Amino acid sequence: MPVFPTNNDVVSLSLPAEQTRREDALLEQVVASFAGTPDARLKTVVESLTRHLHAFVREVWLTDAEWEQGIDFLMAVGHITTDRRQEFVLLSDVLGLSMQTVAMNNPAVSNATEATVFGPFFVNDAPLIPIGGDIAGDAPGQPCWVEGSVKDVAGNPVAGARIEVWEADDDGPVGRLLAATGRSPLRASHLHFMVSSPGLRKLVTHIFVRGDALLESDSVFGVMDSLIMDFEPQPIGARARDGRDLEGESWSRTRFDIVLAPAL
Amino acid sequence: MPVFPTNNDVVSLSLPAEQTRREDALLEQVVASFAGTPDARLKTVVESLTRHLHAFVREVWLTDAEWEQGIDFLMAVGHITTDRRQEFVLLSDVLGLSMQTVAMNNPAVSNATEATVFGPFFVNDAPLIPIGGDIAGDAPGQPCWVEGSVKDVAGNPVAGARIEVWEADDDGPVGRLLAATGRSPLRASHLHFMVSSPGLRKLVTHIFVRGDALLESDSVFGVMDSLIMDFEPQPIGARARDGRDLEGESWSRTRFDIVLAPAL
Repeated sequence: MPVFPTNNDVVSLSLPAEQTRREDALLEQVVASFAGTPDARLKTVVESLTRHLHAFVREVWLTDAEWEQGIDFLMAVGHITTDRRQEFVLLSDVLGLSMQTVAMNNPAVSNATEATVFGPFFVNDAPLIPIGGDIAGDAPGQPCWVEGSVKDVAGNPVAGARIEVWEADDDGPVGRLLAATGRSPLRASHLHFMVSSPGLRKLVTHIFVRGDALLESDSVFGVMDSLIMDFEPQPIGARARDGRDLEGESWSRTRFDIVLAPAL
Repeated sequence: MPVFPTNNDVVSLSLPAEQTRREDALLEQVVASFAGTPDARLKTVVESLTRHLHAFVREVWLTDAEWEQGIDFLMAVGHITTDRRQEFVLLSDVLGLSMQTVAMNNPAVSNATEATVFGPFFVNDAPLIPIGGDIAGDAPGQPCWVEGSVKDVAGNPVAGARIEVWEADDDGPVGRLLAATGRSPLRASHLHFMVSSPGLRKLVTHIFVRGDALLESDSVFGVMDSLIMDFEPQPIGARARDGRDLEGESWSRTRFDIVLAPAL
């Protein structure tokens, strides 16, 4: 009869050989079930996922109650997800899996702007805002003027690049996971960019605010030094760059010169 | 600049040291973010899950497009899940994770009936059917009479045990995963039981039909030899055990003597 774990130590050494044999046989049976996968890449992915998830379940000796909690958690993540809020993306983000995927697939290329995580709050049907326009709508907060350029790595201006810009929102099952693990749900302040132009690598990135106290503890591990920008406070009373009188409100400005890598 | 994988070989040997260093640093940053988790067990579980999921993402060099497919898949699983259909349970089942959890947490105890997976189709609000009653409702198929006993491991009858019985259903995102990996979505024919009585270990199990062609390829790896029963065909015209005249339909019968282990 197997010995049950009484603490968080690794328990495999105390497993009876028969129990280990049965668990190994089960894992090999599951992996073998994918042997007929027609797509070789899918086969590689599902086999690897199966082995790593089994290794996790074994290593922590997941209990029936914990398995149920996991199922309930995933169900809650599924049910809060809509086309305007992608809680599974947020889950991937807070586990660092999004940043890991970005890091593997968007290697630094000479002086090209670095990529970071996509985040859960991008929406496809955002309105078109002309150059110089205001993306904030009625959202509260200090106005910020962002200017810059889009070039390729050789320094040539990129004409007609599409620039998508968005900001964020929060809470839900993943927020509760962060609370339960003593983590702040807060991200370092940032502005999302997705920049695309034919023949160049699509760039998904953010810019961050130099001096922000959360740069070291960003909840999705998305901060890169090269993406931290100076946001310069402007004197109260100074006219905004679009000519508006902000009626005594302060504003800030920053510059983000984007360099697109060649397509992969 | 990192070398991209061109096939399914393990690629870590070709990673530049700088890329490996950055990825290792990211993983350690994510694990460190859980250092303040108040509950020691939750800390163990999330840290282990994080390490194993990162190992998976690295091992297969998950692409951005595959990451998006994974997110979309989980979203589809979430959206089809209701309180009558638990697609995340089904996903856990087909990856063998449910059976692994059952195997770890429900070790065999002397002659106690073995446990198997819970499955996605249990509902809480099923009607009460008296002993000898018909659970099939209007469902088509050959009637089957099931009889048996509930005892403890010492052979004492267990009075008043609660027996919950249910059958199954199928298709959805997990069914599509099985199709894409060349696996049959079919389970070996079975009847679910959950048997509980105060002071004894709650038993979740199935019984299977000896001779069923799918016993060797059950899609959730739930078959155990001790749970395969003889279902004896009865002569056409024989009165059913509840006295009904089946009007020329055949029926079968089986016996399932349940032995409950002591509570853990």
